[in-house]
Amino acid sequence: MTKIVECVPNYSISEDTCGIEKIISPFKEIEGVELVNVEPDINYNRTVVTVIGEPEAVKRAMVQSCKIASEVIDMTKHHGEHKRMGATDVVPFIPIQDMSIEETIALSEACAKEIYEACNIPVFLYNLSAKREQCKNLPDIRKGEFEGMKEKLQDPYWTPDFGYEVHPTAGVTAVGCRPLLVAYNIDLKTEDRKVAAAIARMIRYSNGGYRCIQAGPASLDDHVQVTMNVTDYHMTSVYRAYEAVKMEAKRFGVEVCGSEFIGLVSLDCIKDIAAYYLQKPSKDDVDLSMDEIIDVVVKNLQVHGFSKEKVIEYYVK
Amino acid sequence: MTKIVECVPNYSISEDTCGIEKIISPFKEIEGVELVNVEPDINYNRTVVTVIGEPEAVKRAMVQSCKIASEVIDMTKHHGEHKRMGATDVVPFIPIQDMSIEETIALSEACAKEIYEACNIPVFLYNLSAKREQCKNLPDIRKGEFEGMKEKLQDPYWTPDFGYEVHPTAGVTAVGCRPLLVAYNIDLKTEDRKVAAAIARMIRYSNGGYRCIQAGPASLDDHVQVTMNVTDYHMTSVYRAYEAVKMEAKRFGVEVCGSEFIGLVSLDCIKDIAAYYLQKPSKDDVDLSMDEIIDVVVKNLQVHGFSKEKVIEYYVK
Repeated sequence: MTKIVECVPNYSISEDTCGIEKIISPFKEIEGVELVNVEPDINYNRTVVTVIGEPEAVKRAMVQSCKIASEVIDMTKHHGEHKRMGATDVVPFIPIQDMSIEETIALSEACAKEIYEACNIPVFLYNLSAKREQCKNLPDIRKGEFEGMKEKLQDPYWTPDFGYEVHPTAGVTAVGCRPLLVAYNIDLKTEDRKVAAAIARMIRYSNGGYRCIQAGPASLDDHVQVTMNVTDYHMTSVYRAYEAVKMEAKRFGVEVCGSEFIGLVSLDCIKDIAAYYLQKPSKDDVDLSMDEIIDVVVKNLQVHGFSKEKVIEYYVK
Repeated sequence: MTKIVECVPNYSISEDTCGIEKIISPFKEIEGVELVNVEPDINYNRTVVTVIGEPEAVKRAMVQSCKIASEVIDMTKHHGEHKRMGATDVVPFIPIQDMSIEETIALSEACAKEIYEACNIPVFLYNLSAKREQCKNLPDIRKGEFEGMKEKLQDPYWTPDFGYEVHPTAGVTAVGCRPLLVAYNIDLKTEDRKVAAAIARMIRYSNGGYRCIQAGPASLDDHVQVTMNVTDYHMTSVYRAYEAVKMEAKRFGVEVCGSEFIGLVSLDCIKDIAAYYLQKPSKDDVDLSMDEIIDVVVKNLQVHGFSKEKVIEYYVK
């Protein structure tokens, strides 16, 4: 099997389409890299890019992209609702196929080193790649944002893993390995955010719910959502999240009217969901094509905006 | 509010009704103690007694009962399926009303000391009362059973918290504070133990399920059960266990045909269950009598063998 890694860099840019095109060009040009998605958010003034491919190729493209971002973006002129500390704000690597966590950490370290050497941008290793307790959690590193980084980095507690001084216009970057998680939202047929908040508390681990569910409420234009991360879908299958929300919603007399996956999901994850609704003992008993599995999942979880382009294996040839 | 503690001593006796009567007599005679239940099991050759009442009174009765057990039971002649190390094998104290964990630990320590002084039986402090890591888990202490205790206690690692030498006929006792948990079993309309085992894995914390659920399969005469402990029903309400089992059972085309509480439950616990089925936001919105709450719970969870005599508050005047 080919080793496959996913990379989801976040850039501090959104309206400058031409700038974004330049930044993502290495992902289109370098062989072994597949550009999956580019999602600019104007309120956040931030663009999230999803690529997958062979580890070395993805790393090389990522370093080039980071260099271009440091030339295109000037953080001294950047404003947006999302907290940020650099032109390339964060670079998460996720193991997808035939990659161990250890290999992915090593890849992220090599990438961080090369970003520093190529761009002179200081880099923190975060999440599973963190070398120090204080670097595990990205918001802790980012606290103070671009404007506060110069002072923050003078404190030896916050010396980056590569480099020492903030890049004057490109700021600071965090690079790290994180496990594959499923970002999943469930729509409730109500505008009452309190209902979504109560249900989120009932299903999430921190309040006694399922082991691998983190959840909170979100307000959309005309309804609310329970928005969640399933941190390990092998342990807590996603159908459980859906069925638990449906069950808890009954207490409030509220209907579940849809759901959506944010970003990519693995074929294993949706196979596991399909197995439940097809009354099969496990995902290994599901003998269907990817399209058929998607149909079962879309129908039973009322998923919108889902297609094979959101399944990792679609890109893994 | 009066301080109330529950105590559930386990004695290595079952068929000698006259002996059991003697052992439980202090729980009937001492004021401030209520004898709730006496459950001999002949296969286990073990009797589980449940009492609740005022802390000092329960402790005093417990020490007297332990003394009588050491006179009635001869461990050198005891056989049974359940592992055991003493005439009074284990004495768990559970805080019920206006008692902190710390107060209950202190009570268990005082009880342990008095048992040693009154009966010359060595005592280990276990569970939340344990002073050493190796004493937290009762089966670790009990390993080797009565017959192996003489040798085991010569190892300084296994010096009891009170006393040094095994009592020649009454063995060794463990005393400790444990949190109030709910022992709850759900009946499945099948004789296939594998189904119960699979569902237990799907709902229990250790495999990705609910935070406060421990579960396993059990085989009865004509059907199987998912047998569980809900270790903190404030966090993981018991209706979630029931609804989750019902949901997972659908995969196997199996019906949930009943459920039962083992031992006592608190009014809070069943109020919380009723709130869900009455579509109330929380247990504090349930404005019903104890009998009415029991009716709602029995009907919705298909509970058998349940009545107000199984509710702690029935004994707390």
